[in-house]
Amino acid sequence: MKKYTEMTRAELLEEKEAVSAQYGELKSRGLSLNMARGKPSSEQLDMTAEMMDILRSDSDYVCDGIDVRNYGNLEGLPSCRKLFAELLGVKPENVFVGGQASLQLMYDTIAKAYTHGRVNSEKPWARLDKVKWLCPAPGYDRHFKISESFGMEMITIPMTPEGPDMDRVEDLIRDPDVRGMWCVPKYSNPDGIVYSAETVHRIASMKPAAKDFLLMWDNAYCVHEFFGEYLPFPEILSECAKYGNEDMVFEFASTSKITFPGAGVSVFVCSDRNMAYTKKLLNAQMISFDKVNQLRHVLYLKDRDGVLALMKRHAQILGPKFRCVLDWLEKEIEPRGIAAWERPNGGYFVSVNTMPGIAKETWRLCKEAGLTMTDAGATFPYGKDPQDSNMRVAPSLPPIGQLEQAMEIYCVSMRLAALNKLLGD
Amino acid sequence: MKKYTEMTRAELLEEKEAVSAQYGELKSRGLSLNMARGKPSSEQLDMTAEMMDILRSDSDYVCDGIDVRNYGNLEGLPSCRKLFAELLGVKPENVFVGGQASLQLMYDTIAKAYTHGRVNSEKPWARLDKVKWLCPAPGYDRHFKISESFGMEMITIPMTPEGPDMDRVEDLIRDPDVRGMWCVPKYSNPDGIVYSAETVHRIASMKPAAKDFLLMWDNAYCVHEFFGEYLPFPEILSECAKYGNEDMVFEFASTSKITFPGAGVSVFVCSDRNMAYTKKLLNAQMISFDKVNQLRHVLYLKDRDGVLALMKRHAQILGPKFRCVLDWLEKEIEPRGIAAWERPNGGYFVSVNTMPGIAKETWRLCKEAGLTMTDAGATFPYGKDPQDSNMRVAPSLPPIGQLEQAMEIYCVSMRLAALNKLLGD
Repeated sequence: MKKYTEMTRAELLEEKEAVSAQYGELKSRGLSLNMARGKPSSEQLDMTAEMMDILRSDSDYVCDGIDVRNYGNLEGLPSCRKLFAELLGVKPENVFVGGQASLQLMYDTIAKAYTHGRVNSEKPWARLDKVKWLCPAPGYDRHFKISESFGMEMITIPMTPEGPDMDRVEDLIRDPDVRGMWCVPKYSNPDGIVYSAETVHRIASMKPAAKDFLLMWDNAYCVHEFFGEYLPFPEILSECAKYGNEDMVFEFASTSKITFPGAGVSVFVCSDRNMAYTKKLLNAQMISFDKVNQLRHVLYLKDRDGVLALMKRHAQILGPKFRCVLDWLEKEIEPRGIAAWERPNGGYFVSVNTMPGIAKETWRLCKEAGLTMTDAGATFPYGKDPQDSNMRVAPSLPPIGQLEQAMEIYCVSMRLAALNKLLGD
Repeated sequence: MKKYTEMTRAELLEEKEAVSAQYGELKSRGLSLNMARGKPSSEQLDMTAEMMDILRSDSDYVCDGIDVRNYGNLEGLPSCRKLFAELLGVKPENVFVGGQASLQLMYDTIAKAYTHGRVNSEKPWARLDKVKWLCPAPGYDRHFKISESFGMEMITIPMTPEGPDMDRVEDLIRDPDVRGMWCVPKYSNPDGIVYSAETVHRIASMKPAAKDFLLMWDNAYCVHEFFGEYLPFPEILSECAKYGNEDMVFEFASTSKITFPGAGVSVFVCSDRNMAYTKKLLNAQMISFDKVNQLRHVLYLKDRDGVLALMKRHAQILGPKFRCVLDWLEKEIEPRGIAAWERPNGGYFVSVNTMPGIAKETWRLCKEAGLTMTDAGATFPYGKDPQDSNMRVAPSLPPIGQLEQAMEIYCVSMRLAALNKLLGD
C-alpha cells in the first residue's frame, strides 16, 4: 500500500473510484451506529447490577451509626469518604462525596467562584471584567462547555506526550486575568496521555499571578486501565502543598465508569481550608446527597482492592474493543499516512489526528453512512479545531460486532475525505 | 388554672417555685431528645423500604426504552415526569426531575439568575447593585439561608391566616429592586397555613416592576395531610399564565417526605420558555440525574392514587404525634395564656408564638434539659425574630414515648421563661 500523499493524481483518482464504491456499499446497508460518547456498554452495566440489590433489610441502612435514608451528613457517609480517600491517596476529611455526577461538582465549584468568590478571592468572579482560562486541547468538550457557559475567555494549550505544554502555561499564568486551568491527568480525554512526573511537578509548583487561581484536576480515569496493569498516579493535593499551593487545587473523581454512569457517586478532594469554606457555602444549597447510594457503593466496592479487581473485569470487556479500533487504524489508515493517533492503555477514547482539513468532512461522511461520531472540533475550546484534524473515537458502547462495522465506515469515510482533499474536490 | 398575666406577683413567685422544681426534676433525668428538624421517623423509613428492592433483574432497568443506568435524559425519565405531572396537575413537558433534593434545585434556580440571568433578565443578577427579596415569615429557615448566601436584602412579609399579607406584597413589588419571593403555599413551613384561593389569585396576577421577578413556589407539602382528607390545591403555573405571568414562577416538590429524605427525587415545574432556557444552562452542568432512583419511584408509587394511599399510611404515624403536641399545648399552655399556635391539618410543624421576648430563653431552657428545638429566630430572615416569639415544633422524628417527654420539657421550659419574664428576673 502507498501513502496517499505520495500518490500521483492518476493513482488518487483510481483510489477514489474504489473507495467511493466501498463507501456507497456501506451506506446502502442503512446502519445506525454510535461511537460518539464514552458510554459504558450494557454488558458492563449488567456486570455491576448486583450492587443495586445489596441493601435488603431495614438494619442494612444503618452505617457509621447513621440511618442513610434520612437527612444529614452533607459531606457524605464517613465510610464512603474513607473508600475514596484510600483510592485517591488522601485523608478522608479532605474528601467530599456528592451525587452521581462529578461534572455537577465541577460546575458548582466554578459557579461558586463566580457567585461567592474562592476562599482566597478578593471578590466574586462575576464582578471581574474578564476571566481567562487555560484549556489543554484536545480536551474534554464538557469542560469547555462549562467555561463557555460562564463566558470565560478560553486559551488553548497544546498537548504534548507528557501532558500540557508547560512552557506555555508558565508564560500565560503571569497574566493575573488567567484564573484557572482544566486538567485530566491520567488517560486524558481524549488523548489518553498520562501526565509525566515532571509535568505534575511543574503544575503543582506554579506561581500564578492570580492568587485565587483554580486548578481543576479531573481524575476521571484514575483506575481505568483497559490494557496492562494498574498505573499508580501522583497525589496532587500533597504535591501542591509542597509548594504552598494546597488551596489552588480541586480534584474530582467518580464511579460513573466503575459502577453506573447514571447512578454512581462522585467526589471532590480539596485542602482543609477549601473544605471548610465550600461546606459552609454548600450548607445553603443541600441538606445531604444520596447516602443510600453511597452505602451501596461502600458495600459493593469495599476498598481499593475491590475497585481495582472490578476494573480488571471492565478491562476484559473494554480491552478487545480498543484492540479492534487500533487494529482497524493500523491496517487501514497507517499505511495510507492520512492520520496519526495515540495508543493509550486506559481511559475511554482513542484520539485520532487526521491530515489537516478533513475531520469535519470525515464526520459528515460517517453520519451519512449511519455512524455518529463525536462532533469534529468538540475537543477544542468553542468547538473550533484550528487544524480541523482531531477526532475522538469512543468504542465502549457498541458490541464488538457493531464496532467492526463502525470502524469500517470510519476508515472508509476518512480515506474518502482525504482523497477529496488531495484531489481538491 | 389562671393566666400568668392575670397573676399577682406573689402568685407568680409561688408558681415559679413549683415550675422550677419541675424543671429541675426534668433536667435531672439527663435526657437527649430532638424536635429540631422535620425529619421523618425510622418507622416511616421502614414503611417504604420495599421501594429499594423493586429493581431485580437486568431487564428491570429499561423503562421508556431507556437503560436508566446509563448517561442521558437530562430532564428526567419520561415516566417519572408523568407521575409528577399528574400529582401537580401540569403537563409532563413542564416537569424537570432532578436529584434527591428540591433545595438544590431551588438554590440552583437562584444561582443561575445570578450567573446567567433569568430568561427575561436584562443582565445577570450578580451585575445588579441590589436584589431585594420578599420573605413571608415565619418561614422556612433554609429558604432564608439561600437568600442570605447570595447577599439579598430580605424583606419580612407578615403571615395572615390566608397566607402572606398581600397588601404589603403588592405595595413592595412596585420597587424594581424587588426580584422575587418565597412561598410555601400548602401547609406553610412552619405555620401550616394553606394559602386561600384569593391569596393565590393575587399572587398569580401580580404586576411586579421587575420584569424578571421570580416566584419561588415551594410545594413541599402538597400531599402531606396528617389529619383528615387530601386537600386539592390550585395549580400555580396555569394560574400565573392567566395573567401573562407564566415565566414568573418556578414550582418545586419532592418525595423527601413521601419516600426517603436522603434518597428521594425532586422536581421543578416551569413554563415552556423557562424549561428551554433552563435546560440549555443545565446542559453545561449535568449529563443526567439519577434515573435509577427515578425508576424506583415510578415503580413503587405508580400514580397519584398510589402516592395518596402512601400518604395515608404516613398520616397514621404522624397524626398521633401532632395530636400529642397539640394536647400538651392545650393542657399546659393554653390555660396559662403564654402562647398561641396554629392547628394545621398537614405539613411537618406546629408553629408556636409565645408571649414576646421568651422564645430564645425557652429554647435555652429546653437545651439545658436535654431537648434540642429549632433555633428560636430561625423562622425569620437573618435568624432574627423581632418579637422573640416564634418557635417551630417538629414532632415527626421522636417515637411517641420520647415525644411525650419532649413536650413535657418544652411546656415546663416555656412556663419558666414566661415567669422569669413577668417577674423581671
